[in-house]
Amino acid sequence: MAEENQKPVEEKQAQQQQSQEKDDAPAKDAEQESPEKAPEEPPKEMKAVVLTGFGGLKSVKVLKKPEPTLGEGEVLIRVKACGLNFQDLMVRVGAIDSPPKTPVILGFECAGEIEAVAEGVDNFKVGDRVVALPEYRAWAELVAVPAKYVYRLPDTMSFLDASSVAINYVVAHMLLFDVGNLQPGKTLLVHSAGGGVGQAVAQLARTVKGVTVIGVASKSKHEAIQGSMDHVIERGTDYASEVRKLYPEGVDIVLDCLCGEECNRGYSLLKPMGKYILYGSANVVTGETKSLFSLAKSWWQVDKVSPIKLFDENKTLAGLNMRHLMYQQGGAAHIQSVMDKVFAMWSKGQIQPVVDSTWALEDVPEAMQKMHDRKNVGKILLDPSLEPKPKPATPAKGKGKSSSIDKEDKKKDDDENGSGDNDAKEEEKKEDKKKEEKKEEKESS
Amino acid sequence: MAEENQKPVEEKQAQQQQSQEKDDAPAKDAEQESPEKAPEEPPKEMKAVVLTGFGGLKSVKVLKKPEPTLGEGEVLIRVKACGLNFQDLMVRVGAIDSPPKTPVILGFECAGEIEAVAEGVDNFKVGDRVVALPEYRAWAELVAVPAKYVYRLPDTMSFLDASSVAINYVVAHMLLFDVGNLQPGKTLLVHSAGGGVGQAVAQLARTVKGVTVIGVASKSKHEAIQGSMDHVIERGTDYASEVRKLYPEGVDIVLDCLCGEECNRGYSLLKPMGKYILYGSANVVTGETKSLFSLAKSWWQVDKVSPIKLFDENKTLAGLNMRHLMYQQGGAAHIQSVMDKVFAMWSKGQIQPVVDSTWALEDVPEAMQKMHDRKNVGKILLDPSLEPKPKPATPAKGKGKSSSIDKEDKKKDDDENGSGDNDAKEEEKKEDKKKEEKKEEKESS
Repeated sequence: MAEENQKPVEEKQAQQQQSQEKDDAPAKDAEQESPEKAPEEPPKEMKAVVLTGFGGLKSVKVLKKPEPTLGEGEVLIRVKACGLNFQDLMVRVGAIDSPPKTPVILGFECAGEIEAVAEGVDNFKVGDRVVALPEYRAWAELVAVPAKYVYRLPDTMSFLDASSVAINYVVAHMLLFDVGNLQPGKTLLVHSAGGGVGQAVAQLARTVKGVTVIGVASKSKHEAIQGSMDHVIERGTDYASEVRKLYPEGVDIVLDCLCGEECNRGYSLLKPMGKYILYGSANVVTGETKSLFSLAKSWWQVDKVSPIKLFDENKTLAGLNMRHLMYQQGGAAHIQSVMDKVFAMWSKGQIQPVVDSTWALEDVPEAMQKMHDRKNVGKILLDPSLEPKPKPATPAKGKGKSSSIDKEDKKKDDDENGSGDNDAKEEEKKEDKKKEEKKEEKESS
Repeated sequence: MAEENQKPVEEKQAQQQQSQEKDDAPAKDAEQESPEKAPEEPPKEMKAVVLTGFGGLKSVKVLKKPEPTLGEGEVLIRVKACGLNFQDLMVRVGAIDSPPKTPVILGFECAGEIEAVAEGVDNFKVGDRVVALPEYRAWAELVAVPAKYVYRLPDTMSFLDASSVAINYVVAHMLLFDVGNLQPGKTLLVHSAGGGVGQAVAQLARTVKGVTVIGVASKSKHEAIQGSMDHVIERGTDYASEVRKLYPEGVDIVLDCLCGEECNRGYSLLKPMGKYILYGSANVVTGETKSLFSLAKSWWQVDKVSPIKLFDENKTLAGLNMRHLMYQQGGAAHIQSVMDKVFAMWSKGQIQPVVDSTWALEDVPEAMQKMHDRKNVGKILLDPSLEPKPKPATPAKGKGKSSSIDKEDKKKDDDENGSGDNDAKEEEKKEDKKKEEKKEEKESS
């Protein structure tokens, strides 16, 4: 396979693009296994989670795609587990800067075995167990990833554990130790405390003596996460007052995940020498915040900060955008060094990833909906070896549905939904209504 | 003495204020020793460096002042050495927020022996060798300081060393390790590299493996400081281009001392995950930057920063204002913990304060002028036991001068000079001219 892969990356990408365009024709049955090997090199195919256009859950489909070819400096990975991140939801609705061209295979995080290595890549070999953070294309049976985004697993770490740990703990580690400089005895406020990063933050904070963690989370998660936090405050309440009741002098670090929480009062909670850190996946730069996420207008979207105010108040304001760091700002070597530390902590048993649930590739929309509804506690994973859940038949509405993934290629619908919706379930209802209207039009014409 | 000091702090301050007001009458000869002990408790007096009103060097006089009385929670220190800081120059011209009422004894840093301890203060005893960071009043033979601003010296540390180390190394330590989170292999850009903090930063940075220090300093200091820096760049040049030539990818930390350097290009030099830290003594909040310091308009005085820009760029913006932290924001305990670390490093020989020069109290104006002219390399100290320098006679201008400190109490002149001047020497010329004009008026009337 390595011999096939001496083409420059640009050429390879163009080739893949052509394949993808071909693939926009009505898709084959996603459940179908890879075709039998045939003579004269018919393109090998694999199962992949494809975003066909920006929009609701219907834009996400499991399709057959040509197997990737290796580019310079890349390794080919047979994927065994994938991680779902909030970022994937933002990509789906197009609410990120420099969004990808659709159709595109989704996913930024996967783990598996190396199946091929491009010439010149000498730090990996076939059979290595790795986790990878490619820029898209992680959610497929195979993925070709630049070796600089690939990390060898500790011997005893499962692929599912690796996919739980990689992004969340690396982000959490950078937040606490690179940017936040967490010291013994400090007090930390974490928004979205029940999410994957929130749970990782809580565990990593425990490795520093005497640190107090205050989490803000939906009421429904309190029982599940209270063991990991010193205090849990209900999301949507006047959390700043609650924090002041507990700690009249304020807190040392605020982690604001930019996920639409009402964080306005967070900055004022900072003690002198305190640090306010913005992180997450939201694209709030361009104002393209899709209504799907209906981001609350927070102070950081509106108010610029005077550096002199930070000087007078002895405060720090910082941002962490891992996607930019990795793919635009040459931060791969730094991420590698953090990943090493995270794996070392895992090997010592200092961290134990919290997994919310594991899903088949075909069930990605449902998994996304769970994250969107903030019902997950810890990481949501995908396992390509899993069979999709049997779907309950929906009440008759002209036709029955056997799966939440619509196998028809309704490209027009997907494109129309590029601006996202308030609620994916609402959207499905609307689509059903539209179809009925069209049907009626046809019947009446 | 302890028995005298049961009065509440307010009452004591009022008493001191009265004494000071009395003292505004023409001063006694500053060289005169304390009066003989007399019956009926005449107020004991001490020598002190007094700011009689905001302005030029003439506003700074050595006067006799009543010895301080101990307030609640205070210790009385017999001062053996004092530190001069840029902050003292800013105070002199009134260019700080919440300026003190004049007349006031100047100085934020002194070392000496404890002579008395207020009741209830149990962490110090008479005879303890200490350094203290009072809010003003450090430059006198005696000073009463709240115990929370007093730090016991390592056994072998001299008072002069203590006065060199205290503020500069605590600030430098907080900059590098609390805010900057300096890690091995990082690159650091320091403005005012030849100053006391700059030299402390360079030494502390050396304690972290593989750190590169780039200093910006006046050409005249390059020879003196090049041993402490990896690279020295000339102040006033296009330093950003020079840094880019050396490190095309930029630097990890920029320390901007707010001292009027042209730092505008500093932020753009930051690598991803880089930190820009403002520190120093300047009051640039209110726009009251006195022309004496003719601060360059830097970006941080003009441009507010979007938190989202920090997020997108993976950058940190932070401020450190030690005066606010100590006296307004309850940071004494934190300063104590940093002082402990600095003393431990001194004891291990990891840091060796660089002393520029040591002066008699009477020579403070000259010492201030040297700092103002940026001619010092390292710390400028005051030693109350030193005799003032013999002063050369100035060319006849109506009257001869035997000292740079004018012993007359020209309160009117001092008050008139409250807004500061472009140059202290300029001011002296103007004052001389004014006097001559007055003389002429008198003669002609």
